[in-house]
Amino acid sequence: MNRAKPIRRKLDIKNGRVELSHGSGGRAMAQLINDIFHAAFDNDWLRSNNDQASLDALPGRLVMTTDGYVVSPLFFPGGDIGSLSVHGTINDIAMGGATPKYLSASFIIEEGFPFADLERIAQSMGEASRAAGVPIVTGDTKVVERGKADGVFISTAGVGVLPEEISLSSDKARPGDAVLVSGSMGDHGVAIMSRRENLQFDVEILSDSAPLHGLVADMIAAAGGSLRVMRDPTRGGLAAALNEIALQSDVGFAIEEALIPVKPQVAAACEFLGLDPLYVANEGKLVAICEAQAAETLLAAMRAHPLGKNASMIGHVVEDENNFVEMKTGFGGGRIVDWLSGEQLPRIC
Amino acid sequence: MNRAKPIRRKLDIKNGRVELSHGSGGRAMAQLINDIFHAAFDNDWLRSNNDQASLDALPGRLVMTTDGYVVSPLFFPGGDIGSLSVHGTINDIAMGGATPKYLSASFIIEEGFPFADLERIAQSMGEASRAAGVPIVTGDTKVVERGKADGVFISTAGVGVLPEEISLSSDKARPGDAVLVSGSMGDHGVAIMSRRENLQFDVEILSDSAPLHGLVADMIAAAGGSLRVMRDPTRGGLAAALNEIALQSDVGFAIEEALIPVKPQVAAACEFLGLDPLYVANEGKLVAICEAQAAETLLAAMRAHPLGKNASMIGHVVEDENNFVEMKTGFGGGRIVDWLSGEQLPRIC
Repeated sequence: MNRAKPIRRKLDIKNGRVELSHGSGGRAMAQLINDIFHAAFDNDWLRSNNDQASLDALPGRLVMTTDGYVVSPLFFPGGDIGSLSVHGTINDIAMGGATPKYLSASFIIEEGFPFADLERIAQSMGEASRAAGVPIVTGDTKVVERGKADGVFISTAGVGVLPEEISLSSDKARPGDAVLVSGSMGDHGVAIMSRRENLQFDVEILSDSAPLHGLVADMIAAAGGSLRVMRDPTRGGLAAALNEIALQSDVGFAIEEALIPVKPQVAAACEFLGLDPLYVANEGKLVAICEAQAAETLLAAMRAHPLGKNASMIGHVVEDENNFVEMKTGFGGGRIVDWLSGEQLPRIC
Repeated sequence: MNRAKPIRRKLDIKNGRVELSHGSGGRAMAQLINDIFHAAFDNDWLRSNNDQASLDALPGRLVMTTDGYVVSPLFFPGGDIGSLSVHGTINDIAMGGATPKYLSASFIIEEGFPFADLERIAQSMGEASRAAGVPIVTGDTKVVERGKADGVFISTAGVGVLPEEISLSSDKARPGDAVLVSGSMGDHGVAIMSRRENLQFDVEILSDSAPLHGLVADMIAAAGGSLRVMRDPTRGGLAAALNEIALQSDVGFAIEEALIPVKPQVAAACEFLGLDPLYVANEGKLVAICEAQAAETLLAAMRAHPLGKNASMIGHVVEDENNFVEMKTGFGGGRIVDWLSGEQLPRIC
């Protein structure tokens, strides 16, 4: 009796689709993982085929984070759910001031999802991970029946290591501190909405999805202990990020509309779609709060990095028991930038 | 002008349901996270309200893992998706020989899901996490439209720390090694299937869902460097676990049916449902492969732990270029325990 060793025949990636058997723990799942995920992520931790990855010790305090990605559509101008799931989790690590080291990825896939789309997503994740220097070291795949999910959902988790002198937290903003953003607001959300609504613009609007840990490393080198808070303004945009920090630090903000970078085409699309760019998600931008005397140095360091070249100081932290975010508008007026109460943009990330 | 600070009014957990706004990044999401997740998980890392948790340094090599949980039904005899998502990820860390330290949790929730069920799941996660001594330090919540998911999916990730002398991997089984299981096979899968099929038995069949890191610590203390491989036989059961190890270590297995513990009620239910207990998922059992001369010591250590009291030595590793798992059956015959090719039990975990 002789039996061929399993996992021989390649998946028919061009025409095939995910079936329930690909989540069974049997041979079909091993083949899917091998031909699509291991091929795309390509590292020794995954090739060891264990249910966990054994990694080197990390010298310093750990930082851990996780995010689920349910963005719709899965592919959009400037990115896709795969690269987004790498960038977003890297950014959450970086916002703690830490250096991202390793990622995990959990896939929940709807029966019938095309292999070709899954491969495209996995390749995009692999490329984003290699470009950022943060490997995907372990993963999991589940399949649910048709109609019980929406294509694919991805949850990534990340660990990083924190330099000794850094201690950032959203409760550390103090009156007088400067508020900086690393670039234009609203690009990601508007790119997604434009694709959903099939809008065409003269200048295509691309998602800003990008990994921010390189920019953050430069910021820490320049301003180190003067940094108080960093946040990436994703869901709910700049407005949600500032309101959260205001609440957690028990302060207020005074910001100036004219100083907040918004691309003309994004502003135009927002007007058309009835959106306010301050509430629209970003996936490659950050808000930083630092001691006032370090602000110019920090701004210069940000502008010297490709992902911070349009950085701007947009205002400062004020004492305010109401924790308001107050914005001076273009015509000398003012308004409160309140929390978003309903849902402006579901499934934006 | 005076504004009440947000997040004042409690969620109506008894009658309320999750809406899209609970995934928006705004005030509704903050309230959901605060009233349900922070209340259930209750620790300082979460209360800091950052997008990442800052943790102490871990002295030693890291282990990282992730798993998605899509079990249906969400509540089953002996557990629910919440406790399962804690136990399963702890067990993947433990199977690497590591001590689990921290968990993350990503929730993907269907619009309309009852708050009461979400709270029950979160409470169950919190209890499982505290009982195991492994805190959930960071999380994320996404909401998708009705009909685009199935209640709730949870992805947990975990990190642990690996003692210096331990090096377990599924490619380390060697001919002559002993094969042990920590207890009865098939309980979890049969508990789920019984609930799905509305079966009643004289003796209720409960899921074996449990955290195995305590048992593993005792095993390492007793047999340390003699341990070669550990696996928790989840999807695909004992059959899938042994076939994977056989392939990855390029060996075969000779096991004896009479030595594999299966509860009488589980055997009866399997016969009724047309299942083979060797292919049915477990969530609180492990397979261990160790050097032959350490087997008795290891078995004694396992039996001294509450989660290993029915541990059994079921056979040994053999040289086999076909990587077969051969089983001596009750009547002196033999059969090959092959890979599962189709899907026996979708959404078992």
